[in-house]
Amino acid sequence: MHIQLLRTPSYSRRCMQIGIRLVCWHFNRIATNKPVDQKYQRTFRLDTEKTLRALYVVGTVLKVNLNRSAPPSSTYFSVKCSPNVQYRITPPTAKSGPIPTPFNGNTVLLLTMDTASKVENDSKLSVMYYGKKMKVLGKAVVHLTAFEISLDVDADRDGQVERNNPNKGSWMWGPNGHGAILLVNCDSEHTCRKSLDSEHAEVTRVSDLKDMSPMVLRTSGPAKLPEGYKLTMHISQGDAECVRVFRSTAGMHQTLTENLFYKSFVKDYPLVVGGEDLSKEVPCLWGNAEMNFYVEGLRFPDKDFEGLISINLSMLEPSSQGFPETPIFTDTVVFRVAPWIMTPNTLDPVEVFVCSTTDNDQFLKRMRRLVENSGCKLKICPEDMNRGDRWMQDEIEFGYIDSPHQRFPVVLDSPRDGDLQDFPYDVLLGQDFGYVTRTAYGKEVSSLDSFGNLEVSPPVTVNGKNYPLGRIIIGVAFPTATKGRNMTKVVQDFLWAQKVQEPIALFSDWLLVGHVDEFMTFVPAPDKKGFRLLLASPDASYKLFRGLQNGGHGQAKMFDGLGAEEITVHEILSDEKLKAENNYVQSCIDWNRDVLKRELGLDDDDIIDLPILFHVMENRAVAYYPDMVNMIVLGKNLGIPKPFGPKVDGRCALEAEMTSLMGGLGLSCTYIDDFASYHKLLGEVHCGSNVRREPFSFKWWNLEM
Amino acid sequence: MHIQLLRTPSYSRRCMQIGIRLVCWHFNRIATNKPVDQKYQRTFRLDTEKTLRALYVVGTVLKVNLNRSAPPSSTYFSVKCSPNVQYRITPPTAKSGPIPTPFNGNTVLLLTMDTASKVENDSKLSVMYYGKKMKVLGKAVVHLTAFEISLDVDADRDGQVERNNPNKGSWMWGPNGHGAILLVNCDSEHTCRKSLDSEHAEVTRVSDLKDMSPMVLRTSGPAKLPEGYKLTMHISQGDAECVRVFRSTAGMHQTLTENLFYKSFVKDYPLVVGGEDLSKEVPCLWGNAEMNFYVEGLRFPDKDFEGLISINLSMLEPSSQGFPETPIFTDTVVFRVAPWIMTPNTLDPVEVFVCSTTDNDQFLKRMRRLVENSGCKLKICPEDMNRGDRWMQDEIEFGYIDSPHQRFPVVLDSPRDGDLQDFPYDVLLGQDFGYVTRTAYGKEVSSLDSFGNLEVSPPVTVNGKNYPLGRIIIGVAFPTATKGRNMTKVVQDFLWAQKVQEPIALFSDWLLVGHVDEFMTFVPAPDKKGFRLLLASPDASYKLFRGLQNGGHGQAKMFDGLGAEEITVHEILSDEKLKAENNYVQSCIDWNRDVLKRELGLDDDDIIDLPILFHVMENRAVAYYPDMVNMIVLGKNLGIPKPFGPKVDGRCALEAEMTSLMGGLGLSCTYIDDFASYHKLLGEVHCGSNVRREPFSFKWWNLEM
Repeated sequence: MHIQLLRTPSYSRRCMQIGIRLVCWHFNRIATNKPVDQKYQRTFRLDTEKTLRALYVVGTVLKVNLNRSAPPSSTYFSVKCSPNVQYRITPPTAKSGPIPTPFNGNTVLLLTMDTASKVENDSKLSVMYYGKKMKVLGKAVVHLTAFEISLDVDADRDGQVERNNPNKGSWMWGPNGHGAILLVNCDSEHTCRKSLDSEHAEVTRVSDLKDMSPMVLRTSGPAKLPEGYKLTMHISQGDAECVRVFRSTAGMHQTLTENLFYKSFVKDYPLVVGGEDLSKEVPCLWGNAEMNFYVEGLRFPDKDFEGLISINLSMLEPSSQGFPETPIFTDTVVFRVAPWIMTPNTLDPVEVFVCSTTDNDQFLKRMRRLVENSGCKLKICPEDMNRGDRWMQDEIEFGYIDSPHQRFPVVLDSPRDGDLQDFPYDVLLGQDFGYVTRTAYGKEVSSLDSFGNLEVSPPVTVNGKNYPLGRIIIGVAFPTATKGRNMTKVVQDFLWAQKVQEPIALFSDWLLVGHVDEFMTFVPAPDKKGFRLLLASPDASYKLFRGLQNGGHGQAKMFDGLGAEEITVHEILSDEKLKAENNYVQSCIDWNRDVLKRELGLDDDDIIDLPILFHVMENRAVAYYPDMVNMIVLGKNLGIPKPFGPKVDGRCALEAEMTSLMGGLGLSCTYIDDFASYHKLLGEVHCGSNVRREPFSFKWWNLEM
Repeated sequence: MHIQLLRTPSYSRRCMQIGIRLVCWHFNRIATNKPVDQKYQRTFRLDTEKTLRALYVVGTVLKVNLNRSAPPSSTYFSVKCSPNVQYRITPPTAKSGPIPTPFNGNTVLLLTMDTASKVENDSKLSVMYYGKKMKVLGKAVVHLTAFEISLDVDADRDGQVERNNPNKGSWMWGPNGHGAILLVNCDSEHTCRKSLDSEHAEVTRVSDLKDMSPMVLRTSGPAKLPEGYKLTMHISQGDAECVRVFRSTAGMHQTLTENLFYKSFVKDYPLVVGGEDLSKEVPCLWGNAEMNFYVEGLRFPDKDFEGLISINLSMLEPSSQGFPETPIFTDTVVFRVAPWIMTPNTLDPVEVFVCSTTDNDQFLKRMRRLVENSGCKLKICPEDMNRGDRWMQDEIEFGYIDSPHQRFPVVLDSPRDGDLQDFPYDVLLGQDFGYVTRTAYGKEVSSLDSFGNLEVSPPVTVNGKNYPLGRIIIGVAFPTATKGRNMTKVVQDFLWAQKVQEPIALFSDWLLVGHVDEFMTFVPAPDKKGFRLLLASPDASYKLFRGLQNGGHGQAKMFDGLGAEEITVHEILSDEKLKAENNYVQSCIDWNRDVLKRELGLDDDDIIDLPILFHVMENRAVAYYPDMVNMIVLGKNLGIPKPFGPKVDGRCALEAEMTSLMGGLGLSCTYIDDFASYHKLLGEVHCGSNVRREPFSFKWWNLEM
């Protein structure tokens, strides 16, 4: 059955203009064949003994059980209402409106209003109850005031807070997905008394608002709420550790200007919810108003926090006798905290970081030339800061966080905590440069916790699954090992929880230092998958040396000019112990090669074997000569540890091979002497440097998960 | 290009019979157009200087980079192999096998074997390398031994451990899903010195094995592994807290018999992995052998544990010089820990539990009659155990865990910890009766932590989503409340983590006692959704009382015969304070009604309002007369608190209304006088009892998630 929806728009508009005194009685019925979304239904009660005043939120449905309020013995009812009130009866009745209609089981009236009221109580509903012979037994009257309320966020991820997005209450990955995004406010607006902004439950600088997600409360209705009603913002206890919401006390069209007076600034942006405050009243302007909120993320996704946060706004109705108010309408928005994202070698470099020590002048000079040729900046961490700790790769990992409204780099500080430990917090952390760390409380930290053991692949597709942000790579012990060194669990948990660069665990415990960057790296390539995986290969090295021997160069010397270190090709090839050690090393690298092929979807053609030998110290492997795979990649320029290989016709055979292999990819090799200042200390160029890179153009929220 | 796969089965079989000495050289090539699954590929190296011996696991692919082992200047190669060895070359070559073929870039040989070897080293592969003018530069020979290894579980959930299920390494919900199931071993085989079986890292009784999931290692090949190879079972550190694996030292066809001698029993089923043991060698019979394992779950799913567990078995290859062994093959099986499942009122009752106290003889008598009429057992917790705590509903919640191989009831012990606190552990826990609890360490426990505040709906479908096991229902404070009582977080986390009965949070803090069972219950129904939701309704009560007044029964007395309590209908209706209080109560129940309709997909016709009045004490509500909704449901028999309502023609008007409402559903009402012994202490029949019910016939793993 279909009942016509009657409307008298012009008349109804006039009514509203002349106010509540001239209420026009209509019987505006909602079409009955439309199912009503239960999400917004609210049980509403009538009273035949007194006139009720009620607040209605546009978009909801008031559901009135007519039997319930009916005087005993009632058999018929009739309904009248103002023109801007619509209703329908269920189960449907043939007759309708002001004509008395018999009760039919559980007779329910569904009431809606389309627009906000201009003045309080400008709409009315009345129900008459009749007994036998149409005797009037009672009349229930309600005065209604309609408000529009919408808590709005950038759920479509275009940088603008749209109006009442139907998907704002949920979160979905992908280009057709939806849901707002939140940044962890992990930078520091204050550069002198530095601390993470997220550590402060107040807004002390206007620039800090840019790191927060905008949220707008849009309201429409009479100039104030009926007495006793109020709006409350609330979050769950779990979310309260992860988010804060600040409110702007300024008008809707205020232009943000820096306020130099701290105290007045804090007052301008009071905390609404977060921390201990799970629920707070929002003193709201009405009429057609907008109120601005700023939402601040406090925690990165982790093992016990998926990253989703809900913020709720409820309209509370007063109760009598000091009983708690009842929420009659709740609007909810959902945010996901942006993950920390790593940047692979295929992304453009921005800044290169190295340490200055008493013995690395020459190294720094060559690095400066390479870095400047590559069009980026060299940043030198001075001795008083690094305190002799030159392993810039190991203390930190550069990444970034991204949202439609803001993006900035974030350094992950390793729990390694060498003498460089103050550098990331004291030097890197700053305005729009974030900081995050994980502390292995009470747990032993091993060399595998250094971030030379934390790398990331370029984008790959594996068995049809896309990883447009690549995959994180770490090194651990064999899972079959009864004992062995591992990356500490809190860091592993953090990396896995970021989700968007699903990590791969390699076997690196076979190395004395134990870092994946000792046997692998990625370089950009113009063809195939856009990159090559470079692997250290003792087999390739032996093959090259045997070729030299066969070619009559058995007496050519390695480490030529380095004094006591010199050794001939022939001597190397006849060292059976060295051969056995490299046999073991090759089997370790091959194991990792198989994992990388499988987890990154690589073919053998995507991999290049570099001629590198290892030898064993304390039952674990270290590079025998400078480990060329431990390079710095700056666009098409590679800074490679100078291998000091045997010379043929005055040219280092290892460099020649390396240059030839890389030249095929259009890459230019610069060999940097790191022998005394890094190699002898069991590291190389990559271990001694770090590169901050451009972020991906691909947006993480567009991932299909 | 398609290259014919050549086979000579009869010849090959003969070869194997006469052993390795008579190896027949073939060039068995694998069809090149079939892509090889990288999952099972392993890089394998040749050596031209010595004959290698290698172990091959059937189902894997050995990938040999021919260039890598080639002597310098090699330009051609040729391949020969035993008949049971297949190989292909990539990039594909036109010529093949024993005829010298030119190298073509990164020439790779892929090698497979179809069946296990009968004796060690019964197969062979050799590669010849040629230089200019086909001069032989070297020859690499490998002797191969093939083994079949499969770690098997009941991945198809039929109660049998099938052979090498292709899906055993992952877990998927649903009737077309797959993945094995694990029970938390939370019962106690020992009834005298009682403790949870999962607390012991040993198997002390053969009956305990039935609570564990069977897992079988099936192997085939020569009678022993080549020297230095070994099999290792291993799990991750995170999983080690959640699972133990025991091994049977008995032969494959052993029949389990109870072993009375503890020490020898522990020896028969040694622990393999779990706890501190992440990895252990499995001393394995070979030939065609099966070894039985028993997998024990230790933890229920929770906030920090999704419930998935991987168990790995790896073949380790020896390395030279005391270096660690390398895993060359890993088989993985995945289990999901069975969730704890609650049973709604619509399931058949098995046992009813009540407490005996100094003052409840009559109550117990009536309960016994009702329970026996309902065909189930009454179990009375005696005074020395309950110590005067009669609230059997509040201390415990009955549920069960289920798997294809075993199922048993599990009691969830509330952190309420009243004087009944020892009852669940000391009395209920036993053989095939499990126990689980959550402790709110350092957190305050409130009345909302009692399990009268934990219920479960019958199966429902909500907006097309099926909940065939119903949904859990708890009571909390309004999320908008700045302060209020809540169910403690550890219990909420536990309930949500079980996943299969997604919980709903209602508002119950408006009640002084604060339990959802004070205003709602479910009863079976022959029609519609198979049940009705019963809600306490002051409006329904007032309507009934007004009807009585109108009918001339205004002087009829409530609490007739109870002495000082008596009050007339007229007095009740003229009590304005009581009316205001019930107005508030009705708004609280209506709020919950809206939530329940939305979250359970209910219509108004699925709900029955019961005439119940409340009054307010300490600003919160308690039942004014015995709270009829707080009933015990035993099939079609309802045990309802006797309301002592006003009498009309000698019959209680409240009982008459209740009996009429329930009669329409074919339910029989028994009114039990709980006035002095329960109602006056702020509880009723339901609060003072508990029902263990039959489990669902629906299997939780068939849920579509």
